[in-house]
Amino acid sequence: MEKIKTKGYGASGSLIGGKTLELMEFDRNEPKADEILIDVLYCGVCHSDLHQVNNDWKNTVYPCVPGHEIIGKVVSTGAGVSKFKTGDLVGVGCMIDSCKHCEPCLDGEEQFCEGPVGQTMTYNGYWKPDGSGFNTFGGYSTNIVAQEKFVMRIPESLSPSAAAPILCAGVTTYSPLKHFGVKAGHKVGIVGIGGLGHMGVKIAKAMGATVTAITSKVSKRESALALGADEVLISEDQDAMKAHAATFDFLLITIPYAFDVNDYIPLIRRRGAIVTVGLLGPYKAPTNNMEVAKFCSTVGGSLIGGTVETQEVLDFCAEHNISPDVQMIDIKDINKALDKIKDEEVRFRYVIDMATLKN
Amino acid sequence: MEKIKTKGYGASGSLIGGKTLELMEFDRNEPKADEILIDVLYCGVCHSDLHQVNNDWKNTVYPCVPGHEIIGKVVSTGAGVSKFKTGDLVGVGCMIDSCKHCEPCLDGEEQFCEGPVGQTMTYNGYWKPDGSGFNTFGGYSTNIVAQEKFVMRIPESLSPSAAAPILCAGVTTYSPLKHFGVKAGHKVGIVGIGGLGHMGVKIAKAMGATVTAITSKVSKRESALALGADEVLISEDQDAMKAHAATFDFLLITIPYAFDVNDYIPLIRRRGAIVTVGLLGPYKAPTNNMEVAKFCSTVGGSLIGGTVETQEVLDFCAEHNISPDVQMIDIKDINKALDKIKDEEVRFRYVIDMATLKN
Repeated sequence: MEKIKTKGYGASGSLIGGKTLELMEFDRNEPKADEILIDVLYCGVCHSDLHQVNNDWKNTVYPCVPGHEIIGKVVSTGAGVSKFKTGDLVGVGCMIDSCKHCEPCLDGEEQFCEGPVGQTMTYNGYWKPDGSGFNTFGGYSTNIVAQEKFVMRIPESLSPSAAAPILCAGVTTYSPLKHFGVKAGHKVGIVGIGGLGHMGVKIAKAMGATVTAITSKVSKRESALALGADEVLISEDQDAMKAHAATFDFLLITIPYAFDVNDYIPLIRRRGAIVTVGLLGPYKAPTNNMEVAKFCSTVGGSLIGGTVETQEVLDFCAEHNISPDVQMIDIKDINKALDKIKDEEVRFRYVIDMATLKN
Repeated sequence: MEKIKTKGYGASGSLIGGKTLELMEFDRNEPKADEILIDVLYCGVCHSDLHQVNNDWKNTVYPCVPGHEIIGKVVSTGAGVSKFKTGDLVGVGCMIDSCKHCEPCLDGEEQFCEGPVGQTMTYNGYWKPDGSGFNTFGGYSTNIVAQEKFVMRIPESLSPSAAAPILCAGVTTYSPLKHFGVKAGHKVGIVGIGGLGHMGVKIAKAMGATVTAITSKVSKRESALALGADEVLISEDQDAMKAHAATFDFLLITIPYAFDVNDYIPLIRRRGAIVTVGLLGPYKAPTNNMEVAKFCSTVGGSLIGGTVETQEVLDFCAEHNISPDVQMIDIKDINKALDKIKDEEVRFRYVIDMATLKN
């Protein structure tokens, strides 16, 4: 099989250990019958890229080429592909393949794939079940190959450069808001106003909810209001937190490090729900079930979304004129950008202009 | 106002501190216009009676007369009562009054009452908002007074002596099973096979689910099957727990002490839910949100139920021929009974025959 020469930025070890992302060259396999080769135009920089590169989840295979918020153009398609043709503007999110036969896959919820090797993540994933498995490289690269089901249609009204974060930050926040049934009349709090949270504010507003942006940073007040939040609640302000007790129907928590969920449980009203999407690890302290039971509330978690919801959120954003707030960067500035993400200085998402890798 | 002479069993301090429940005499106020005086025939012994007497929740007012699973006969009614008449067989559960005007009260969910003093618990509660407030005494007594909304109709087909535990153990398990929408096709696990759990098994079965009784005690296998469980899973058996991973739609956890909920999260399948009803305090360890998010599941809590669901579960039990498994006791044996509850030896609920207090 012919190989496709690819350039990308990858890390040979954790940044904490002193490594940086560096230019590297590698080959991709040509697309098989049901696969699509995509020229990467833009790639969002997700907080989980930093977690993965730093081996925070103890499962990183190096070298690691991150990137799962990908906007690109179709270069070529396998013989069996009917969904797209050369030149189409497309997106790829957190997964590029799955078994496609189990119940979750048939439901378009491939993040729960029950096949022999489960879903294949866009980077640091294992492709493929037929025995020719290898570690996947993501979108910080000139091109990518994905199974056609995992390639999304980008609505014409979306700005291609700004749309990239919808593929992860968008679906990660849209999915739990949708599953709770957020609608007009609901009071929704979005905790943590970063890459995920800023999309949460926009999407919850578009769903009709009254939205409170909840942040520990007074400095984010103005920008949170500019995103469309109806009000801003500073989580360090104990009086303000008490004044909001038992008033929220739904809280989406996007804090990306261990925190104490007990700080937020009193905000929820009866039969309300908390969903934590930022933290992929244990909370800081044991949950007090007395406080949860008192209002019959729930503390849940959610992780990305499947192909159905990924296409849905792209269409939803187009319909509601939602565009992520992005800062375009040169691929050569990726290490600086990851530093700023660590220090929570990005407003609100970096997107790599991949032309800077090709020139 | 005339007073009603009453005998009851109450504690002047924690049993841990060496006290016991002793015979005491006290007065109850005559029923007001919308209140009902009830002659107590039977009263269930709930694990929370022990918690409350022992001041486990740091809010016990002594003397403490427990009892909130009450079956009795109407002795007299206030002038405005139309729902019941003298001689009717009735029940009283965990609450005897609330503001009746707030949104939760209008919904029949008085456990969430938002009135000035909230709902009035049947014992160790504060009655009443008009300023004549006093600490309430529960059903370990010859009679009780309750606001008519909080007095339940006991369906004729229920055995009066066995029906008592439906008023708390029944509604506490029915409510979360109903809110999750448990039905045929669901695989439901009931964790902890005691007073609450044994009702959970019966109710979930009647809702059509396939029910697994989950217990740490091999000795409870036969009795759990006799309750109607389709299978028994021993939680200490790591291989069996692994074999059941990601198979449950819903887990109702009735364990009445601090435990590690992380032990149970892997049992839940995608978009499944855990509801903990036994533990009114913090879990033993921080919840790992990675495991929760992986399957988009939720870890919730639930506490009793309102008047609507309390009547519902009585009617549901009558319709489905569900009767709690009870052991009748003499009031003079209440201290021994509380000891056996502490040691988890009861199968599955003690009910006090209140005739033994009157003679």
